[in-house]
Amino acid sequence: MAEQRVTLVEVGPRDGLQYEQVFFPTPRKIELIDRLSASGLTRIEAASFVHPKAIPQMADASQVMHGIAKAPGVVYSALVPNLTGCQAALATPVDELALFVSASQTHNRKNVNQSVEESLAGLARVAALGREAGRRLRGYIVTAFGCPYEGLITRRQLTAILDAYAAMGVEEVSLGDTTGMGNPVQVARMAAWLLAGPWPLRVAFHFHDSRGLGLANVVAAYQAGIRVFDCSLGGVGGCPTAVGAAGNVDTLDLVNLFEEMGVATGVDFESLRQAALAMEKDLPSPLPSRTLRLGRPAWRPPAGRRA
Amino acid sequence: MAEQRVTLVEVGPRDGLQYEQVFFPTPRKIELIDRLSASGLTRIEAASFVHPKAIPQMADASQVMHGIAKAPGVVYSALVPNLTGCQAALATPVDELALFVSASQTHNRKNVNQSVEESLAGLARVAALGREAGRRLRGYIVTAFGCPYEGLITRRQLTAILDAYAAMGVEEVSLGDTTGMGNPVQVARMAAWLLAGPWPLRVAFHFHDSRGLGLANVVAAYQAGIRVFDCSLGGVGGCPTAVGAAGNVDTLDLVNLFEEMGVATGVDFESLRQAALAMEKDLPSPLPSRTLRLGRPAWRPPAGRRA
Repeated sequence: MAEQRVTLVEVGPRDGLQYEQVFFPTPRKIELIDRLSASGLTRIEAASFVHPKAIPQMADASQVMHGIAKAPGVVYSALVPNLTGCQAALATPVDELALFVSASQTHNRKNVNQSVEESLAGLARVAALGREAGRRLRGYIVTAFGCPYEGLITRRQLTAILDAYAAMGVEEVSLGDTTGMGNPVQVARMAAWLLAGPWPLRVAFHFHDSRGLGLANVVAAYQAGIRVFDCSLGGVGGCPTAVGAAGNVDTLDLVNLFEEMGVATGVDFESLRQAALAMEKDLPSPLPSRTLRLGRPAWRPPAGRRA
Repeated sequence: MAEQRVTLVEVGPRDGLQYEQVFFPTPRKIELIDRLSASGLTRIEAASFVHPKAIPQMADASQVMHGIAKAPGVVYSALVPNLTGCQAALATPVDELALFVSASQTHNRKNVNQSVEESLAGLARVAALGREAGRRLRGYIVTAFGCPYEGLITRRQLTAILDAYAAMGVEEVSLGDTTGMGNPVQVARMAAWLLAGPWPLRVAFHFHDSRGLGLANVVAAYQAGIRVFDCSLGGVGGCPTAVGAAGNVDTLDLVNLFEEMGVATGVDFESLRQAALAMEKDLPSPLPSRTLRLGRPAWRPPAGRRA
């Protein structure tokens, strides 16, 4: 294998928290993001500038973006659904705007009440505004590995969105397995297809663990050449508009996986673990993370070991 | 890849149930095993002939073995720790005796209060008795991928046990990642080493999901040539004598994984799912399985789909 390192994009403060029914207090969000910054992560999706009536949990996006202590070398991102959200985001020190559209017409309609083409037309205007303001652009493709309503997503559907994102000046595209329909064989094929494609886009994969295949899919994608992975601290999250959506793959379990495989993440596991334990205190239910409870494997032999 | 099929060894009735604190009624155990037989599984570990004071849940092993309706083509196995257990097992229609020893001296001592060498000497006598009675032999290597007390397990430690099992006439060896310390890179190397080795043993891998890597490890092992995997229905189980042991990889999630990858399991997912739902009624807590709740991905496009 070529480069033995990966970049993790922490989406817990946004994708993870957004559907939590109990409001996660603004100072706790800021504390969480500052802890994430201190753990060695270089990419953090910190907020979402959606309408507060749609996602009340993200109503404090501006306060959060102004409240965090931006660390050097860390790129802070925020989700923007439209021009209004974009303008609000641009009034904050956000580094990157994250756009999104579903590969599936039905899912996009349920999510934002627009066709895929209508969404892309709107995002082009958002992207232009963001570029003018000197911000980086990231583009999500939601339900890229399968849609609970439509089933299979075709390469033609993905190509249309990839072309559109590339034309908008998006630098990185993140393909989401929103409801955990992907499997390692499909993921490896998708990675090979994307990396061989004509698009001047860095490719990230964004797995949810709905059917327990999140980490298996990460490994398949890594083996196929993908080097950027989205994850959420402790596995926090889930999506009520998509059938069976569980949280993203857990950042802790992902760091453990890669470090055990000899692949550098640049992240300090124990700092992250403390951040997850602190976050969990303000959540209504325990985080699904495995290594949060168990820690990493102990490989050092104790004194008196017999071999 | 060569052969696109795998054999699953269902260990739920034994490894899965053995540490459940509430007694799982004998008729329910028999019903569970009969349902497993009907699902297309060809290998079922049905009971354990350990001392009832050590594992009260398995006190009804003989009744279970006599009570089940043995299906043609299905191999029924039982764990036997020693000669006493072996004699009890041989008085039942069990097809296969499953022996076990830890790769780690410390873990073996904590588990059965013997050194590895003492265990192997005892197992040789059990194996001889089993062979004389015309039964198949399976040998577990516990903590094969790492020990929570000793850390790294060396190839030398594994070789000694593999040599001993081969000399006893064991046909299949199952290497257990008892506390979830394995990772996909290590697992692939282990598989390559075992398959290139001199032992006339079929190799099975037995993963626990303690750190969420069970299915990722299965995929790595499959890619490296392993074709036999242990699993427990619904992911039932866990081991109190091993730090941080969770249940085995879930049979349902494993069937979904392989079938989605285009690898045949010969198992009917929906029958298994019904068996898991029935089992869960007699368990004190919900099963950790993902696909038990969510089902398999729906790939068929509904009418009116727009592409």
